[in-house]
Amino acid sequence: MINILKRNGLNKVHAKICSLAIINAELVGAPTHGLSRLKMYCDRIQKKVINPKPKIKIKKISQSITQIDANNSIGFVAADIGIKQAINNAKKTGVGLVGIKNSGHYGLSGYYAEQAVKNNLIVFCFTNAPPAIAPHGAKKSLFGTNPICFGTPVSNKIPFILDTSVSVINRGKIRVAARTGKKIPEGVALDKFGKPTTDAKKALAGVQLPIAGFRGSGLAWMVDILSGVITGGNHGGKVKDPFDDFSGPQNIGHLFITIKPNLFVGNYNQRIKENIKRIKKLPKIKGVKEILYPGQNKFNKYKKNLKKKINIPPNIVEDLKKLNA
Amino acid sequence: MINILKRNGLNKVHAKICSLAIINAELVGAPTHGLSRLKMYCDRIQKKVINPKPKIKIKKISQSITQIDANNSIGFVAADIGIKQAINNAKKTGVGLVGIKNSGHYGLSGYYAEQAVKNNLIVFCFTNAPPAIAPHGAKKSLFGTNPICFGTPVSNKIPFILDTSVSVINRGKIRVAARTGKKIPEGVALDKFGKPTTDAKKALAGVQLPIAGFRGSGLAWMVDILSGVITGGNHGGKVKDPFDDFSGPQNIGHLFITIKPNLFVGNYNQRIKENIKRIKKLPKIKGVKEILYPGQNKFNKYKKNLKKKINIPPNIVEDLKKLNA
Repeated sequence: MINILKRNGLNKVHAKICSLAIINAELVGAPTHGLSRLKMYCDRIQKKVINPKPKIKIKKISQSITQIDANNSIGFVAADIGIKQAINNAKKTGVGLVGIKNSGHYGLSGYYAEQAVKNNLIVFCFTNAPPAIAPHGAKKSLFGTNPICFGTPVSNKIPFILDTSVSVINRGKIRVAARTGKKIPEGVALDKFGKPTTDAKKALAGVQLPIAGFRGSGLAWMVDILSGVITGGNHGGKVKDPFDDFSGPQNIGHLFITIKPNLFVGNYNQRIKENIKRIKKLPKIKGVKEILYPGQNKFNKYKKNLKKKINIPPNIVEDLKKLNA
Repeated sequence: MINILKRNGLNKVHAKICSLAIINAELVGAPTHGLSRLKMYCDRIQKKVINPKPKIKIKKISQSITQIDANNSIGFVAADIGIKQAINNAKKTGVGLVGIKNSGHYGLSGYYAEQAVKNNLIVFCFTNAPPAIAPHGAKKSLFGTNPICFGTPVSNKIPFILDTSVSVINRGKIRVAARTGKKIPEGVALDKFGKPTTDAKKALAGVQLPIAGFRGSGLAWMVDILSGVITGGNHGGKVKDPFDDFSGPQNIGHLFITIKPNLFVGNYNQRIKENIKRIKKLPKIKGVKEILYPGQNKFNKYKKNLKKKINIPPNIVEDLKKLNA
């Protein structure tokens, strides 16, 4: 991967940052954000809509606040610089705020949250994405899957990281249902006429819905504002699909907020441990062995996958071979 | 109301702060957070679990960060002081963070968000609440309805305020369904054995579910950490029900985050206007006249209710008469 990215003009440091993020996505069980995207990133570099040699501008607005203009860098690099700034700012002042513009798809929000958590900080990561879900009341997609990502240290090696999209199920699952002729759950999608449907094919021609109706729609809207409107990034449905639209850079925005956990209490680690303990001790519904906190599942996959070979689909192996030829 | 609260030991300033918040809840169409709670607040003062004459400690940690120990004041007063601190901090430094402990139920989060928005700030308000919904996998309630509240100025007089609980429907609606023998939607509640139910009576004996399964459960958990664990407030199911449990103060925590909108862009007002315009222009599903942004609905109710008499149920009129007798 490092070789492939270097061939496409990235320097070694940037190539390594990207490769680590991509491999991490594979290890935590999110291959949609892993190797399957490498060809797309390279295509975008070749079409000059990702800048492999960006002049990234870092502007300190205060000890707590930093603005980054990523100059259309690959998202991983901009986000890596951004989260490190956010970490340093919070360590110095208790709270950090970093706004990034002119960036691109950065992979998993949780990957950056984890860096902050490993530095013993509480963190929010916001980013937006190309249109995928319809605002409440609309029959056309506009919001991205716009994840809400929150992390906190928990005084053990498995970080608490909530990294949840605001769509009910991902498009991949609807595609699988369409292929296998299965129905999709109620409340997940509308057909092209704006009517609720459980027919996967009709759903693919229509739009996906946010979680919980107007509540999820509001959360998606919030994320669009936080990542796009505030930062100077694209917003309101203007983020281009990285796979399909090479007419220009994505100009995605990211916003990172970091907070020292011990600002108001001396024993945060003990308190969060107690919090998790109380919740884990609750009586469970049938079939549930353990109540997991957000992040535990991904961590377990990561640990398991570290010990075995990563399974790469043949078409992606082909892509990698061609890219490295 | 001011008289009633003064009789219960509050000074005039505090009594007025509470009364304005309570009236606002009535006007925006949230009577569950309005006059119906006044007797409860007075009862808690009489039972000495709300302190009518609190010595509220305000500790400046930095120009951006303030800690407040509310000394078991009524929640409205602590939150009013807190949001004003958060507003001042962000105005001075671009970002404000205020953690409050030893507070109580403060009414609607949106009420405080609105104050920040009227001061041209972006804002998050977090608070937790007594157990009402079950964590994903559990068959016992622990999280409160734990609202996520986000606000932003939008360059017109109707603020964008998302103030959404993470439970699917509120308990009041389930109570009404139980009385009228109607079914509740799927995915809303579990019976006392932890099995999904659409029977309202069984749901009342069981638990309510968070929105969107593990996603909503994670969001509720996040809010519990942000409002309780960080601040020094109660958390992990330890917030007492204000109506039923007079064994001690609630010690609720609140966390306010405020951000100047023009930190990274010079034309935030224009950008958010454009954002909202694009979304409102989308094709609508049948029966939808206008795509509303969060807060519009409440504002419309507020405007309408301002011009007419507030409807107070007879039992609450009785309570008010007794409290004022």
